[in-house]
Parts: sequence; C-alpha cells; structure tokens
Amino acid sequence: MELNEFQPLYKQLVLFIRKQIDEGVWPPGSQIPSEREMCEMFNVSRVTVRQAISEAEKDGLLERMHGKGTFVTNLKINQALQQITTFKETMSMRGLNPSTRVLDEYIEPSDLKTASVLNLTDGEPVFHLKLLGFGDELPMSLYFSTFPLDLGKKMAEAARNLEGKGEGFSTYDLYEATGYVKPYMVKQTFEVDVADEYIVEHLKIKQGSPIFIVTSIFYLEGGHPTEFRKAYYRGDKYKFYINRLL
Amino acid sequence: MELNEFQPLYKQLVLFIRKQIDEGVWPPGSQIPSEREMCEMFNVSRVTVRQAISEAEKDGLLERMHGKGTFVTNLKINQALQQITTFKETMSMRGLNPSTRVLDEYIEPSDLKTASVLNLTDGEPVFHLKLLGFGDELPMSLYFSTFPLDLGKKMAEAARNLEGKGEGFSTYDLYEATGYVKPYMVKQTFEVDVADEYIVEHLKIKQGSPIFIVTSIFYLEGGHPTEFRKAYYRGDKYKFYINRLL
Repeated sequence: MELNEFQPLYKQLVLFIRKQIDEGVWPPGSQIPSEREMCEMFNVSRVTVRQAISEAEKDGLLERMHGKGTFVTNLKINQALQQITTFKETMSMRGLNPSTRVLDEYIEPSDLKTASVLNLTDGEPVFHLKLLGFGDELPMSLYFSTFPLDLGKKMAEAARNLEGKGEGFSTYDLYEATGYVKPYMVKQTFEVDVADEYIVEHLKIKQGSPIFIVTSIFYLEGGHPTEFRKAYYRGDKYKFYINRLL
Repeated sequence: MELNEFQPLYKQLVLFIRKQIDEGVWPPGSQIPSEREMCEMFNVSRVTVRQAISEAEKDGLLERMHGKGTFVTNLKINQALQQITTFKETMSMRGLNPSTRVLDEYIEPSDLKTASVLNLTDGEPVFHLKLLGFGDELPMSLYFSTFPLDLGKKMAEAARNLEGKGEGFSTYDLYEATGYVKPYMVKQTFEVDVADEYIVEHLKIKQGSPIFIVTSIFYLEGGHPTEFRKAYYRGDKYKFYINRLL
C-alpha cells in the first residue's frame, strides 16, 4: 500500500482491505492478519488498524469472531425456498449485475426416464437447453433443461433473444418471455456433490468444490409436466433458506 | 460366488449383487459390470444375467439408464423441507433402525454472536449439546446445538435418558420429551461444504466428501429463541425436497 497524504490513514487501510478481498487475496471466510501484523505491515498505530477494521466490519466486509480473530465475510447468495425469486432479482439483491449465456441447445430422442417424467412416448424428441448464469463476470449457476419439443423451441428462441439484450435469466423467466404456457407448480430436490470436470470448466471452480444440485419438475395447472431441469449452483456462493411453523 | 445347486442361478446372482452393494464393493451411483462381463464372471448364460438384473431392478437395487448401462441406485434419505419429520420417522421410512449417541455436553460463556441469536447478555452461560444420529450402524447426521442454560440442562437430561433406551432422536424430538417448552417456528439455511477432520471422524466419510450444513434457529410462539443449531448431514445419504405453487 502506498500511503497517500490526502486521505486519513485508516481510510486508506479500509481501501487496502477491500482490494485484498475483491482480488481474492483474502478469500471469503479466511482469517485476516492480526492487528499487530497489520501495524507492522503498514507502520501505523494500533488505533489506526482498529479504526480501519471497525469501518470494514460496518461495511460488511469483515466479521470479528470472539476469541478467534477477524475473518472475511462469506456473503453467499441467500435464495428463498418457499417463494420463487427470478435469477435477475436474486443477483440484483446481492448487488451483482446478472447476465446469462446460452451454452447449448439440441433436439434428441427422449430416453425412458425423460419420457416418463415429461409424460411423452419413449423416443419422442425432446429439446435440451443449457444456460449459464453470471453475477457480474462470475459464473454462478448452470441450468440443464429438457422440454417437450414445441415448448423447447419457443424457450430457446426467447433465451437467445434475452441473451442478445444482455439480460440475466434462468429457464423459469423464459415462460413469461414466451407467454406460451405458465407453470403452476414445481417439485424440487436438493442434493450436494463435488464438481465434476464439466462443472469445474463452466463454473470456474476448483475440482472437488462442493455444489448444490437442484432437480426440478415444472407442471402446468392441470398437472401436465413442462420441464425437467437439473441446476448446479456454486456451493461457495449460494445458500437457501426457509422459515416455517412447526 | 460359489454356486449352490438348491437355488435357481439367477436368484443366487441377485444375492451376489445385493452383497456387492451392501459391502460397498459397488458403491451407490456406480456402474455395474456389463451383461457380457457377468456371463464370463459366473459362467452363466445371458438370459440368467438379464433375469437377475431385472429382479435386482424391481427390488430397487439397480437402475438401467438407456444407452449408458446399469447403475447401483443411489437411495438417499429424502427429507421434506416444508413439514418436519422426526429423525426416527425419517430413518424408519428408509427401513433403517434409528439410534442416537450423545457426543458431548458442556456449559460455556456465550460469545457475542450466540448471545445475540439467543437473546441473552454477552457472556451469559449457554449449554452446548452434540448428538450423532445413526441409521442402522451408519452415522448419518451430527447436531451441534446451543441452548439457554436451563433449557439445555433439561434437553441433555432427556437426551441421555433416550440414549439409554436405545432410541433415535435429534434435538427437535427432545422438546416433546422434556415437555418444558414447544418451539413454534424455525428459520433454516441450507449450505454445502466439504467435510473437515471433525466431520470426517464422526460421520465416517472420506475427507473432501460433500455435506449439507443446515443452520436452524428455533423460536417459541412469542418469538423468543430457544435453540441455535448447526446440523451436518452426509451428502451421499441425504436429499431434501419441496413441492410448491409458483
């Protein structure tokens, strides 16, 4: 850190802390150097270091743990389980700029399982759509969806359209964009796993990183299934919450 | 496999398959040898192998994936997110015999965070209770709970009592056992991580295995907090589900 005589020392130190965090030098959840070490690093007084840490704590950058030290706050995206929030809203709430890339789209004969889930005849063609959601420039979530053919074509068209506009969306947002059908109910299971090669490559996380796998089946009001989806969320960036009466 | 002349060959083969799965030689989700390989392994006809695989599939041991092969079913415990199921019910539904061990209990002055969550004065003593839940002989979930002192003492007493009877329970079941207070609401967050040393040791899983971390705060009807709990569930054994209207 180069000291700047026009700003109070502690403010410069807060900027330095923010930079370390933003650049990943101090990753989320990691312990930062002790007050004494920071005094020595910058040749400043303990009072200045304490003032900077307090300020960074108020800004939500750091968290002091009683008797353990000071840690970089692990700010995960906190997604509700009971009500749906769109991908755009979820990212915006965390102050991230949402965008989505269409990774792949193709038609394939359905296998027995997919046909059964989507209430189709085994072998009937289905439409696969793969999306990658970003918060700022960071890949956050992968969506692998399978639709009945006609719906899938419309969804992919809407996806390419929104992608062209630089919008952030998941497949759920595409129903409104197409205005074709509106899902009424969703069944979801939440599982955990460690990232395989494909996930590592797309979510830009380390091999062996923990991920959420959320499998969803969407249904229309009459009970007809419209989508079978597997979504992969970065475990270091996502948490899900629920509040309920017992 | 030693062939036994008193049982049909395919039945013996099903027993062999079950044994491979039970003993973990074929882990959940893994691909089993091809029909041809199994014919050669046991010197039996393709018809016999097919009959055995069909039988094992009907029993829910195996799952055939179109064009990919046959896999060991990954039967996870499927826990509802919307309503509460007791630990005992959850294990029993999967045909597992539930039991619980009290790992640890101690009194400690609260740190600022715990005191704030439990609505106590910083430093006021709190009661820690650690439980380990088993399905059959397999460790399934770890519960680290913190209670206000008086409640904690009662909960620990109930826990030791139920443990002595060989019962399966989580901290939630202890409220009824004590008959002291009854939680009315719970706030929960679901996170994923990989197992650290303590978790590895107690859940008997490999270092780096994915786990669910479920943080809960339980409240009484008036809004008073009664328990702060971190629960760790084996990622290879648990999944959570929710069905909801959109």
